[in-house]
Amino acid sequence: MSQTSPHPNEDLVLSQRHGSVLLLTFNRPDKLNAWNNDLENRYFALLDEAEADPDVRAIVVTGAGRGFCAGADMTDLQRVDELDDSGLPDRPRPREFPLTIRKPMVAAVNGAAAGLGLVEALFCDIRFCTPDAKFTTAFARRGLIAEYGAAWILPRLIGTSRALDLLLSARVVRGDEALAIGLVDRVVPAENLVDAAVAYAQELADLSSPWAMSVIKQQVHSSLDTDFATAVARADDLMQQSLLGPDVVEGVTSYLEGRKPRFPGLAAR
Amino acid sequence: MSQTSPHPNEDLVLSQRHGSVLLLTFNRPDKLNAWNNDLENRYFALLDEAEADPDVRAIVVTGAGRGFCAGADMTDLQRVDELDDSGLPDRPRPREFPLTIRKPMVAAVNGAAAGLGLVEALFCDIRFCTPDAKFTTAFARRGLIAEYGAAWILPRLIGTSRALDLLLSARVVRGDEALAIGLVDRVVPAENLVDAAVAYAQELADLSSPWAMSVIKQQVHSSLDTDFATAVARADDLMQQSLLGPDVVEGVTSYLEGRKPRFPGLAAR
Amino acid sequence: MSQTSPHPNEDLVLSQRHGSVLLLTFNRPDKLNAWNNDLENRYFALLDEAEADPDVRAIVVTGAGRGFCAGADMTDLQRVDELDDSGLPDRPRPREFPLTIRKPMVAAVNGAAAGLGLVEALFCDIRFCTPDAKFTTAFARRGLIAEYGAAWILPRLIGTSRALDLLLSARVVRGDEALAIGLVDRVVPAENLVDAAVAYAQELADLSSPWAMSVIKQQVHSSLDTDFATAVARADDLMQQSLLGPDVVEGVTSYLEGRKPRFPGLAAR
Repeated sequence: MSQTSPHPNEDLVLSQRHGSVLLLTFNRPDKLNAWNNDLENRYFALLDEAEADPDVRAIVVTGAGRGFCAGADMTDLQRVDELDDSGLPDRPRPREFPLTIRKPMVAAVNGAAAGLGLVEALFCDIRFCTPDAKFTTAFARRGLIAEYGAAWILPRLIGTSRALDLLLSARVVRGDEALAIGLVDRVVPAENLVDAAVAYAQELADLSSPWAMSVIKQQVHSSLDTDFATAVARADDLMQQSLLGPDVVEGVTSYLEGRKPRFPGLAAR
Repeated sequence: MSQTSPHPNEDLVLSQRHGSVLLLTFNRPDKLNAWNNDLENRYFALLDEAEADPDVRAIVVTGAGRGFCAGADMTDLQRVDELDDSGLPDRPRPREFPLTIRKPMVAAVNGAAAGLGLVEALFCDIRFCTPDAKFTTAFARRGLIAEYGAAWILPRLIGTSRALDLLLSARVVRGDEALAIGLVDRVVPAENLVDAAVAYAQELADLSSPWAMSVIKQQVHSSLDTDFATAVARADDLMQQSLLGPDVVEGVTSYLEGRKPRFPGLAAR
Repeated sequence: MSQTSPHPNEDLVLSQRHGSVLLLTFNRPDKLNAWNNDLENRYFALLDEAEADPDVRAIVVTGAGRGFCAGADMTDLQRVDELDDSGLPDRPRPREFPLTIRKPMVAAVNGAAAGLGLVEALFCDIRFCTPDAKFTTAFARRGLIAEYGAAWILPRLIGTSRALDLLLSARVVRGDEALAIGLVDRVVPAENLVDAAVAYAQELADLSSPWAMSVIKQQVHSSLDTDFATAVARADDLMQQSLLGPDVVEGVTSYLEGRKPRFPGLAAR
């Protein structure tokens, strides 16, 4: 891909600060924000920046226009015969890169989240959506397999049977069913969706220790790959570590004083 | 067991084709379809046939009469002292054989599913039931342990706590609670149960790629035994494979043309 | 800690027998039953006794006064600088000791269950609560990590996303939401809470085989750390074992005779 300016694709994902919350908006509304490499590169670059900025304490991701993300751009899919030997486009970061972000990520799903678009919502930690949001795995109806870890994530989110239902049928699930089965955490009317997600993220930023949140994210994700004894031993180590840092003193003191905590931001890695 | 004809037990499980869907019906209604070796052998033989038949794209399993399956035939359980050294009857296929079927299996639970009868429902991918269906693990009240992987499957379906509740108490759960806790996926009035399950299965047969469904089933089941990185790496390999096959072309083309896909059937193994 | 009598702390946890059910009550009501080492030692000692007593077939845990357990006593947390080199107080049993108890444990959460107090509720097998019970992980707001296996248990109880929501935000969840997301199994009006939990535990004691329950608890917990094939192989071994013991004969006979079973109690280890 040739680039004629340092950020030729910056409009593909809009970036806006609300207090300590970074709001990222997929911005190909005429394509229901269909995913392509340029959008991915811009999204991941913005996540990189967010990681490095101690003032960003939580991230909200949404879509411009009617959709969240309609999945991989079909135009790209039709060019599969043009791919190189590896069969996959060169990618500087693995697709699951958002899972490694140390700050809480909240998806605000405003419309269709299909295929890879659903996977991107699943790579966020928490999901808000509108009643009319449309979730579909899409893959099986396109002759595709469960891509990018969806077959691993979904059973752990909604149970094995519901995961098979959604993956085998690729049927569309709306907001209320998504909530009932655990695919999303909150359903919010469309006009309040982004505000509600940002308010939730701001509460995380105001009340929860950035250091603790980064450790907890890593604990939850790694706990899924380990046995109980290992997770407990690791928690003991981390607890020791927490007792040496400044956050626990501020956390306990602010609690006893009945005031909001003032935790330090998370330093760049 | 002596057999005087090639299929002496064929009435133990009825087999009926509805379009691309195979409907199998446990058929010992006077015994609430209690499980015995003959019924198992007939059921598994029919699943074998379904696997080998490219025209069968999905399978629905239900019970004749008032029950789905009342569990192991008590008459057999009382003969435990007659078992051979291994303690278990000789069995040509492992009991979890249904989990290896590459085609979607939908249980239509029309009444009691108890003990091994519940396990057989759990070995299907998706569960429909009536409001009056009765689910019970039964084991603990008979002095039995959680048999055949039930202790492994249930926590992954309904969470650890509900699994312990159902396994320790062996209490009866009806349709609506079963839905609320994720034990079943749909509750349907009795008069429509089988039709609804067959319609769902027919939709899978009409709209989802048989090859993709066979891969996805395997992905979901194997994902439960592996870590995230392995699942993602495997998904990448499988995606490569999908791009070489005919289904993705048909899937994307039919989508862009706004018509139903015409995917090839799954060849015998 | 110096002790001037054999049981100087016995009032910290009250112990009461109701039929075959042991009711344990955290009893520091003026501190919302905040956890400290003396309370832990007394609680664990009572669990030890319960394990050794064949007449105790199930255990209910609740809190005196308005709370279940408000978490680690803040007074102790403030003394972190007084800890020895290991950073943790000397502890004769690991904190996850309750998970090793072979008898069913039911938490009756009557009020706030925060931080370590929530973890103790999670270490029970099944949770009852009042509509006004308050659950909070608390950790992130105190600058603490997800302690004692909470990051491992919660995703397996309520799914990854809800676990992250509760752990990152440390927000308060009330009874009805706790039920909807699978954090608790029953919501009962305050005036009936303990009675309902004891009645449930008594039903386990009356109808379920103590030996089978002890095996099933172990099966469910160990199944979370193993793959399906191992779990099935282990279930086969245990089923063989069950067929050699007295409980299956009594279980099947009592069922066929339409009477309550008379299972033997669980011998001390």
